[in-house]
This record gives sequence, structure tokens and C-alpha cells, in this order.
Amino acid sequence: MALNTLLNHRTIRKYKSKSIDKTLLNQVFEAGCRASTTGNMQVYSIINTSDANVKEQLAPTHFNQPMIKQAPNVLTFCADFNRFNKWCKQSNAEPGYDNFLSFMTAAIDALLAAQNVAVAAEEVGLGVCYIGTTTYNADKIIDVLKLPKGVIPMTTLTIGWPDENPGQVERLPLEAIVHNNVYSDYTEDDIRTLYAEKESLPANKQFVAENNKESLAQVFTDVRYKKADNEHFSGVLLKVLKEQDFL
Amino acid sequence: MALNTLLNHRTIRKYKSKSIDKTLLNQVFEAGCRASTTGNMQVYSIINTSDANVKEQLAPTHFNQPMIKQAPNVLTFCADFNRFNKWCKQSNAEPGYDNFLSFMTAAIDALLAAQNVAVAAEEVGLGVCYIGTTTYNADKIIDVLKLPKGVIPMTTLTIGWPDENPGQVERLPLEAIVHNNVYSDYTEDDIRTLYAEKESLPANKQFVAENNKESLAQVFTDVRYKKADNEHFSGVLLKVLKEQDFL
Repeated sequence: MALNTLLNHRTIRKYKSKSIDKTLLNQVFEAGCRASTTGNMQVYSIINTSDANVKEQLAPTHFNQPMIKQAPNVLTFCADFNRFNKWCKQSNAEPGYDNFLSFMTAAIDALLAAQNVAVAAEEVGLGVCYIGTTTYNADKIIDVLKLPKGVIPMTTLTIGWPDENPGQVERLPLEAIVHNNVYSDYTEDDIRTLYAEKESLPANKQFVAENNKESLAQVFTDVRYKKADNEHFSGVLLKVLKEQDFL
Repeated sequence: MALNTLLNHRTIRKYKSKSIDKTLLNQVFEAGCRASTTGNMQVYSIINTSDANVKEQLAPTHFNQPMIKQAPNVLTFCADFNRFNKWCKQSNAEPGYDNFLSFMTAAIDALLAAQNVAVAAEEVGLGVCYIGTTTYNADKIIDVLKLPKGVIPMTTLTIGWPDENPGQVERLPLEAIVHNNVYSDYTEDDIRTLYAEKESLPANKQFVAENNKESLAQVFTDVRYKKADNEHFSGVLLKVLKEQDFL
């Protein structure tokens, strides 16, 4: 059993200046692109950005997180019906994929491929970091990466040779995530028990103290993922879906 | 380099009647749940259904695809802010996750975990099949699996010991999927070249003939993924987002 790569996953945010050999990166893509895809339509694309100038333009769209400029390669995984639609039209077939369900189909394709690429990268010794801001500034990323209608960026991976060896972050116990047969909703006691270890970790306690909050949850709601921001960026993302012909 | 598991991926639709040892399945879940998650919020859940009666109820929600009843375990991966919201409220923190951006955040968590579980399963010799109909009948799956507000099913994996050894399906050449630096849109010639091998395969030609169509693309647009169906199920899914408090 070789679950070690998965079990040892760590997010790598610092990379050596060494570039990634093109043959190796293609092997990672070949393996990643074996991920399942709805109806084998492969309605996704990967934008592999290594050019310093394009990375410079991408950086502010990810709130200037330093990994964007520091990593040798930035991979933007996109829901993409553009290629498939063009194929249909050239084949005397009328595509009907300008709707929300088709967006979700393409988003699923893109995200399964992203995780397969992430696993493949770690399997060959590379390090990766998911950048969660892709859905926040999809409009700006569309401009920088020149994404046509039918294409929406879903997530971003920075990738390179690790220059750090961080500890592993905590996870909730498995019984918090996995339900047997049907969903078993959580009682107050369940929640208290399931989050107890997370709340007790020194790093998380420090996080609460540094932010002058009463609880770890308040760090999320009041500092990291605030209602006003979520609502603002929801508006942006829904506008992007309309502009890219999915709503 | 151990990319073989990824490179050898095949969808397994027939399973032995042998059940999956609980310890082994938990190892698969442990490895799968190391997948990256936005802000380590883990806003997803996995419903592990093995009960014959619940599988019987699930079957029609997946258009009676036989894998649902035949596989020993059916895993439904859900975007889930319910658990996190409960934790926030108990921690004197006001969650602001009843919006579209938060739905996408949770959907991404669920899908990265799904692919990590799929890889882990294959790594230990199990076979999996993604069921793409989860987003079509999310409303009915919510009823069967008793999903509370804040929870939406995103994808489903059937899992079990393989009882077939199918050939590998084709993929488009890598240059169809991967763009360098920015998106390079496709010319008519590009499309023709990139889809040529796919169209020339005997299995795909047979598919066209069996369906009395002129082109492979028409099998997709006129038979498999039709505009009217996509529009109908888009309406259902958007209604689900509203009812589950994400729109």
C-alpha cells in the first residue's frame, strides 16, 4: 500500500529558484489528465504560466500572495467549454452548454484534474500550494490570461521544488467528515467534541490571541472570511458566469 | 517515480460482491482527507452509503445506473457549510457563508477530496466510478441522504473490488489542454487536428453509427448532453442553491 504521498501532503509556499524540467512537467500533466471527466468531454484547460511578466500581472489578482511570483510555474485550472463548443460547431452539432449545469460540469472536470496534477507533482518530489483566491478575482484573471467566453478559472496551483519542510496541519477527526448511509446532523455536543482538538492547538490559540478574538471561529468570521467580502465576491463571480455565457 | 496509479486509471463499473474492510476504507478516507481545503475549513462531507435500502433509494436519483446498487459502497461528496456554521454559532461568531462564493469554496473542497479519495482507493487496489448525475438530481439526493441546509451533493463515487479489466479510454493530446503562459484560442485547424485521433477511433465511429448521427460531436449534443436537459437541470440546481441557503 502506497498511500504515503497522500498521507504526507504538505502545502509548500517556498520554492527553490531551480526551474521544472519540461519533460518532467509534461509527465505530471499526462498523469494528471488521466483524472475522470464527465462523458470524457475534458471540458477544462490548464494555463501553465512561467513567464515573469505574466506572473507579475497575476500577482495582484491573488492579493499579492508571494508564491505567485516566487514559484517557477503557476497553473490556473479553468472550466472550459470553449474548445468543446468550437468542435461541436465545426462538426455540424449545436452545443447547448451555455447554462449553469454545464458550468458545474466543467468546474468539476477542472477540479478533479487539479487534484490529480497536485498528487502527480508531489509523487515526483515537487511541492504545490493551492491559491484559493482564483474564484474571488476571476474577472481580473480572465483579463490577464486572455480567457475567452466559455472559460472560467476555478483554482490555481503554484508548483516548484520545495525550499521548506513545514509541519503538517491538523484535520478534524474522520467522524466529523464521514457520515454512514445518510447525513447525521451534529448536536451541540458533537460540534464541541469534533472541534476540541483543533481549538486546543497552541498555533490556533496563538492565532486567536494575535487577532484579539474570543474564539477561533471568530478569526474566520471576523478576519479571514468575512460576510461582506463573501457577498461582494459572490456578485463578481455571478457576473463572470453571465459574461462567460454560463448564466 | 510512481505515477503508475494515476497513469493506469480506469473507470470500474463492475464490482465483486466482496465488501470493503472497514479499516481499509478508513485508511482510504484518512489519506483522501489530507487533500487541501480552503483555510483548512474542511467545508465538505462524505456520505458513505452501504445499506442496500438506501442504495435502492439512491438508484433512481442516478437514472438507475447499475453501479449504485452493485457497488458495496456509494460515496456522495457534498459541499458542506452546515457543520462549520454550527461551530461558528456555538463560538459566538456570526457566519457569513450563505452566498454563492461560499458555495463554490465548499464545492472545491468536496471535489478535491473526492479525487484524493479516488486516487487512494486505486492505490490500494479498489476500483471507482464517478457518477456525473449528482448535480442533475441534487434535490432528490438531498431528500434521500437527509442533507440539511448548507449541504449540497457535488459528485458521487461508487467503489469496490474490480470485477472487470477494461481498456483505457482515449484522451485529447496534452497540447489541447495545456496553454503556455496565457490562453491560446483554437483555430479551426487546431480543433480539427486535436480531435482527429478521437474521431478516428473505431469505438467512437461505432458510437456515431449506432446513434445514426453524422459526427461524434452530434452524439454529445443530440443524444448524451442535450440543451433542453441541461437547461432543465440548471433550473433544478439553481433552485437547490437557493433552498440550501447559498443564493
